[in-house]
Amino acid sequence: MSALHTLGLTAMLEALERGECTLADIWRSCRAQIAHAEPQVRAWQQLWEGKAPDEDAAQAGLLRGLPLGVKDTIDVRGLRAERGSAVWQGRMPGADAACISLLKRLGARVMGKTVTTEFAYFTPGATANPHRLTHTPGGSSSGSAAAVAAGMVPLALGSQTAASVIRPAAYCGVVGYVASVGSHALRGVMPLAHSLDALGLLARDVADLQYLVQGGLGGAVASGPPWRQPRAVLAIDGTAFGEVEPQMLALHEQAVAELARRGVQVTRDAGALLGEGGGPAWVEGHRQTMAYEAARTLAFEYDAHREALSPALRALIEEGMAIGDQRYAELCDAREAARARFAGHMRDHDAVLAPAAPGPAPEGLHATGRPDQSRPWQWLGAPQVTLPAAWNGDGLPLGLQWIGTHRGDQALLQVAHWAQNALGWRVRPPPTFAPLAPSHA
Amino acid sequence: MSALHTLGLTAMLEALERGECTLADIWRSCRAQIAHAEPQVRAWQQLWEGKAPDEDAAQAGLLRGLPLGVKDTIDVRGLRAERGSAVWQGRMPGADAACISLLKRLGARVMGKTVTTEFAYFTPGATANPHRLTHTPGGSSSGSAAAVAAGMVPLALGSQTAASVIRPAAYCGVVGYVASVGSHALRGVMPLAHSLDALGLLARDVADLQYLVQGGLGGAVASGPPWRQPRAVLAIDGTAFGEVEPQMLALHEQAVAELARRGVQVTRDAGALLGEGGGPAWVEGHRQTMAYEAARTLAFEYDAHREALSPALRALIEEGMAIGDQRYAELCDAREAARARFAGHMRDHDAVLAPAAPGPAPEGLHATGRPDQSRPWQWLGAPQVTLPAAWNGDGLPLGLQWIGTHRGDQALLQVAHWAQNALGWRVRPPPTFAPLAPSHA
Repeated sequence: MSALHTLGLTAMLEALERGECTLADIWRSCRAQIAHAEPQVRAWQQLWEGKAPDEDAAQAGLLRGLPLGVKDTIDVRGLRAERGSAVWQGRMPGADAACISLLKRLGARVMGKTVTTEFAYFTPGATANPHRLTHTPGGSSSGSAAAVAAGMVPLALGSQTAASVIRPAAYCGVVGYVASVGSHALRGVMPLAHSLDALGLLARDVADLQYLVQGGLGGAVASGPPWRQPRAVLAIDGTAFGEVEPQMLALHEQAVAELARRGVQVTRDAGALLGEGGGPAWVEGHRQTMAYEAARTLAFEYDAHREALSPALRALIEEGMAIGDQRYAELCDAREAARARFAGHMRDHDAVLAPAAPGPAPEGLHATGRPDQSRPWQWLGAPQVTLPAAWNGDGLPLGLQWIGTHRGDQALLQVAHWAQNALGWRVRPPPTFAPLAPSHA
Repeated sequence: MSALHTLGLTAMLEALERGECTLADIWRSCRAQIAHAEPQVRAWQQLWEGKAPDEDAAQAGLLRGLPLGVKDTIDVRGLRAERGSAVWQGRMPGADAACISLLKRLGARVMGKTVTTEFAYFTPGATANPHRLTHTPGGSSSGSAAAVAAGMVPLALGSQTAASVIRPAAYCGVVGYVASVGSHALRGVMPLAHSLDALGLLARDVADLQYLVQGGLGGAVASGPPWRQPRAVLAIDGTAFGEVEPQMLALHEQAVAELARRGVQVTRDAGALLGEGGGPAWVEGHRQTMAYEAARTLAFEYDAHREALSPALRALIEEGMAIGDQRYAELCDAREAARARFAGHMRDHDAVLAPAAPGPAPEGLHATGRPDQSRPWQWLGAPQVTLPAAWNGDGLPLGLQWIGTHRGDQALLQVAHWAQNALGWRVRPPPTFAPLAPSHA
């Protein structure tokens, strides 16, 4: 059997079920991997210091005491929630976030809080990409993606307002899932832009997401088989939204050919979907909506702690405050029209296939990469799943994402599960890390 | 001139502008009215104890230092936010809610926190109806409505998930406005059901709402004249949603006749709007959506502080947890269909006119009255304004509400302003209160 920490959630449950290991073994293996990799990956803002759950926990709930990573914008009682900002250093939340209460009921135990960018916007934390430590893990759910990729936990919570789950999942080569906007009670999740914020999960297997979502986390309905080959796919190569690297375009092209070979009907006309302003109008619609809402959401920090905010966040807030209500109304109208067009196209297609990011993770930890390839779908409120569809010569993953209709999460997860199994778009085992110094060997 | 505390917001600003009084005079008058009326009305959870704002404040912002009441589910830094629950006794929030930051920027100063029902659901606080102390003020924004009605503050913040602004405003005879769902960043407002929660305001004049909303609080766009006679109105008498008292039906009928006399085209066919299940399906759609979402939102309190919750709230949470994701998906589908039908009807109508409540405020402080007449419109996410359209023989107000299209707040406020002026649906001066004991005389 593989080392326990390299398993996904359902594989861990199967190992428990078959009596191949105890819950304590799993926690020990994950914690050992954290001790091994964390000095270089820096995925954690704070680790829970208590004892591993006892064997009673292993009998409880669907998740049987398995460890969960939680983005530091999400409140967990007893752990700090600092939101990637000096403003909230040491903040102890009074209550668990709604999603945390539900996951605890399901038997999950929190391993710790994972690094987020500042208020889930763009200014990065310390986390490195486990597959190449000189490269960004993406953001804002940086620590959650890196922790799953490095085999520290089988599952982590994130949230997405622009590209905050899909991009880090793609850069770190794990499965990233963003739920339809509005599916979950987001109490206790620090908001950024209320019409765009959505809950997300990072995992090693699509089956793990389905298990959890259908098991009580909500947002999708269990029906039909676990996977399903799509009949018709709308393939969008992303060039309408921003620059896409040749290796990503080639991968997308290759995926389209593979779908066609398997009898999937592939449509490639983005123009009719995008409407008059084309892709740039969608990207800009998202960007300005986010700025307007974030400026109001973060008005307290701007007024009371301006000097503690990064220049990038201050600039976003200032841009957003300058967007008037008239312009915001126009943005909402434009989005409604785009959603209606998208719903129309999705009557004839099971999913959209698109790049999850412009390419692999860029070099450097000073920025988290471009969000253009996620903004349009998040603007629509659509559910999204990214999978590691290939790995390049530098050992970095390339993510392709499937996008579904609003509240069509279940059908989307079925298509993603099919792609994982049939096309082999699978998460790889965690990398091993060279020792930092002889004492770590 | 009338006593300062009896004025609405814009009337206070005019008095300041004309040099008839100072800001200190206004605060003194409001505080004297609180001292006079609070022992019997019990509108406040906590009053701000500091000095009245100085004359510098009177130069700042649109609101020039005028006092604001804030429902205790909304966070204000430096004041407790106890949410009507023993669970959160003494809770000091770390940040201002987004709406509070914006109102402070506009120059408002917080007079204090107003009484709410438990978590903005149905279990009442201590507040009495200022117009009849033996009768409920309605809920959940009980203290905000009573404080404005009693002339303690010209303006108060509320929030609505079912009937929490419209019903107390109607019962207390003030103007109540609920913004379109989704118009405002609700950070710092305790959520109850995320797809239904909306910000609300209680005031003495529709012009006050327009001044504020267009001046920077957001949610509506300033355009056109301040008031406008509607060309076509859809009149719904509310009997499809629940029992309506004869005095309310007579008032609605009389209002319809008055509209017709003024050349307004009135349509009365609710059936086509309501669709297959009729009114009960709308009421029940709202009720179950609220239960599903509230159960998840309040999961922490249910798990950690169950004994501190009222039986009614526990029952709501338990009912909601028993509603599965499949049923919730059906509820969302039904709402989408209802919204589409409503949008279709509203292409030919400027507003809906309906009872704001089944009748006047019921006797007793043990319950807050029936929410049936608000549930349907809140389910749609539509903006609503209630006005005191008449006063009955018991000295209690009867509210009729105008309902607009989603994000059509501006046009709705114009119609409401017209009704206030042309039909005389005006807020009356605050009542005087018999002294509790000679020392209060």
